[in-house]
Amino acid sequence: MRPTRPRPWFLSLTVLSLCLAGPIAIADPGAKPHPAKSAEAQAVRVLVAYHSRTGNTEKMAQGVVEGIERVPGAAAVLKKFDQVTKEDLRWADAIILGCPTYYANIPGTMKAVMDEWAWHWGIDFTDKVGGAFATGGGQVGGKEHVVTSLLLYMLSNRMVVAGPLYEDTRGTGGIWGEPGSAAMTGPLDLGVSDKELDAARRLGERIARLAKKVKSG
Amino acid sequence: MRPTRPRPWFLSLTVLSLCLAGPIAIADPGAKPHPAKSAEAQAVRVLVAYHSRTGNTEKMAQGVVEGIERVPGAAAVLKKFDQVTKEDLRWADAIILGCPTYYANIPGTMKAVMDEWAWHWGIDFTDKVGGAFATGGGQVGGKEHVVTSLLLYMLSNRMVVAGPLYEDTRGTGGIWGEPGSAAMTGPLDLGVSDKELDAARRLGERIARLAKKVKSG
Amino acid sequence: MRPTRPRPWFLSLTVLSLCLAGPIAIADPGAKPHPAKSAEAQAVRVLVAYHSRTGNTEKMAQGVVEGIERVPGAAAVLKKFDQVTKEDLRWADAIILGCPTYYANIPGTMKAVMDEWAWHWGIDFTDKVGGAFATGGGQVGGKEHVVTSLLLYMLSNRMVVAGPLYEDTRGTGGIWGEPGSAAMTGPLDLGVSDKELDAARRLGERIARLAKKVKSG
Amino acid sequence: MRPTRPRPWFLSLTVLSLCLAGPIAIADPGAKPHPAKSAEAQAVRVLVAYHSRTGNTEKMAQGVVEGIERVPGAAAVLKKFDQVTKEDLRWADAIILGCPTYYANIPGTMKAVMDEWAWHWGIDFTDKVGGAFATGGGQVGGKEHVVTSLLLYMLSNRMVVAGPLYEDTRGTGGIWGEPGSAAMTGPLDLGVSDKELDAARRLGERIARLAKKVKSG
Repeated sequence: MRPTRPRPWFLSLTVLSLCLAGPIAIADPGAKPHPAKSAEAQAVRVLVAYHSRTGNTEKMAQGVVEGIERVPGAAAVLKKFDQVTKEDLRWADAIILGCPTYYANIPGTMKAVMDEWAWHWGIDFTDKVGGAFATGGGQVGGKEHVVTSLLLYMLSNRMVVAGPLYEDTRGTGGIWGEPGSAAMTGPLDLGVSDKELDAARRLGERIARLAKKVKSG
Repeated sequence: MRPTRPRPWFLSLTVLSLCLAGPIAIADPGAKPHPAKSAEAQAVRVLVAYHSRTGNTEKMAQGVVEGIERVPGAAAVLKKFDQVTKEDLRWADAIILGCPTYYANIPGTMKAVMDEWAWHWGIDFTDKVGGAFATGGGQVGGKEHVVTSLLLYMLSNRMVVAGPLYEDTRGTGGIWGEPGSAAMTGPLDLGVSDKELDAARRLGERIARLAKKVKSG
Repeated sequence: MRPTRPRPWFLSLTVLSLCLAGPIAIADPGAKPHPAKSAEAQAVRVLVAYHSRTGNTEKMAQGVVEGIERVPGAAAVLKKFDQVTKEDLRWADAIILGCPTYYANIPGTMKAVMDEWAWHWGIDFTDKVGGAFATGGGQVGGKEHVVTSLLLYMLSNRMVVAGPLYEDTRGTGGIWGEPGSAAMTGPLDLGVSDKELDAARRLGERIARLAKKVKSG
Repeated sequence: MRPTRPRPWFLSLTVLSLCLAGPIAIADPGAKPHPAKSAEAQAVRVLVAYHSRTGNTEKMAQGVVEGIERVPGAAAVLKKFDQVTKEDLRWADAIILGCPTYYANIPGTMKAVMDEWAWHWGIDFTDKVGGAFATGGGQVGGKEHVVTSLLLYMLSNRMVVAGPLYEDTRGTGGIWGEPGSAAMTGPLDLGVSDKELDAARRLGERIARLAKKVKSG
């Protein structure tokens, strides 16, 4: 639903009512990548872009979207990295990137596309809020280095970054954060667990909340 | 000048007028670590805490304060890391940490104190804005790893982080950011240059501006 | 059993026969930190130094020693970081460091001691082989950053570094490595599992084997 | 000069005599990527693979080759990353990778090719010795993160890594190392300076010397 495409008035109303009712996640990248601009004027817009080969990172990406949906007035767009458009990037108040770990770093094919975004597409990322997530095997297999690398990419592009928030549920009052979210998906621990999905949701929620603060500030 | 200490009315007025006139940097940690709470209600408060053995990092820290002072309504407090109090940390809307590079990382003595801040002092850093700077010798001597380490410390403590902003002055329209600021102070390039001080000022300015956004958001 | 202490001839023989029979791990730092120099002339000597508060990292350190013991002619010394002596560091052909994760990095108290080793003790680490391990909670809690930080410390001190080796046991022929070993010991996954201990053993074995190569090369 | 290509006997002799006289660097990747296998049996073989757009990283790569040439019995092959063959990778006892910094990391196009090397080409990198270099602008622009990322790639592929060695020439007896070599090539400091070229040469020399130790060990 880009501004350049004509569309009937009732669709706008539908989008508007959805925005009022809660956040929107649109996973089909071909159809309508983000809500009508008029309707979303006050909302915070979060792009979740990911790389996934086996489906694990996609599951985490969906968890991130669920977290964004917890925040009233937040709209999410979920896209594979190679389907992200200039418009998606400009539209976004916040960008959350996620990928599997290839040799302790971002997959080269995804990084090549990210290099395009910043360099050849001329996107201005200033003050957009960023978050990162990763999947990968091994306790020291590089998931963290992927998250750090995604955050450094964002900081080098003038973004503001943060991670998910935690609190101890055993009544100790302990609180902490993490630089991003991840799922161990290698031989030690296959698939995406509930706790790992919870980490993805926390990331989406934190970034959406923070983006609202920064946008209205 | 903590709230718990009695002080004459005219001092309050002085602080108030200084706040109205511009930001305040107070380097003497013993005397008045931060402005009166009443005067600063609307201001954004930035703590700059640093480690310096030879004076290079201190120069960078002073550059950071100069950058904060460019932002109307921003108040800076400059302190050596081992003189930072609980009150300083609670008071701060933003915290900028800087240190020399010891074997590619934060000096152990400073990290030990930082461990105390988060663990034993029970400071809640949630949504405070953070920035980092470093000094060190060598092109791959660890200055970057120090900056990344300081940012990961902040993210692990629920902070929001960002770095200095740059633009190409040659009219290309190029803009970029960096994860933090640093000065090369080793055998290849002694001392703190004007360009490095400029990086420190840009860091202070960005963090102060961002802290205003986050605080009022 | 430092050279400066007189000791009876039969003790020497005991140590010699132990050396011939297999590697030696001596955990009591006060008594005999490393085998007699005469006996170990051809052996490779590995120091395992660690920080442990709750015992998890100590368990991993013991796993590392078990891995060293798999290598014929390798002698291990296991010590808490604050009990390591100049002699231990000079004696070692290889050094494996491990610690818990404090705010995504090495505990400050341990880093402060490590700063002493390199700076004030004047140890020459050139071509000593190094490896690293960590414990910590969370998928992005900083275990990897600790491992990377320990390796960068070693590289900044002229060491050569490597990590544990793995191979796919399902017959795919897949092989890979990791930069170090770690155990997740936080709320998601308490304690040190068998697979994590296995990672520690692999680290010890790899570093001992590699140290033999470098020493005899 | 691969074994599969027929070539006149006098060329073999030339290569042999060059090998005996000192190391060989062959920059033309199309012609003869590495010396005849018979001649190099005892030599240590170092592949230097790089990405360069403006020529700065290529200059550094040539400096690395000069450093390798200081080591008797070391043979270097210099290639752009996208011209490296399976044979080059298998042939190498050591691999030194270098590239410019794109948004604080390895250029995506180069990482994509590196992903192929390890994954689809099935190269066994075990115990090959690795080193890394980078170019880039800014004091915190990501050169270090590139070097660390290249080293983590190598460690994840079972390699052994090290960096250049330094000593204080002012008679203090001070010695140190760095995780890799780099040149600042951005707005603060254009081009590759003599000191930066020296860092490249030190990297080549260290890696070649270490590869000899590991190979003969």
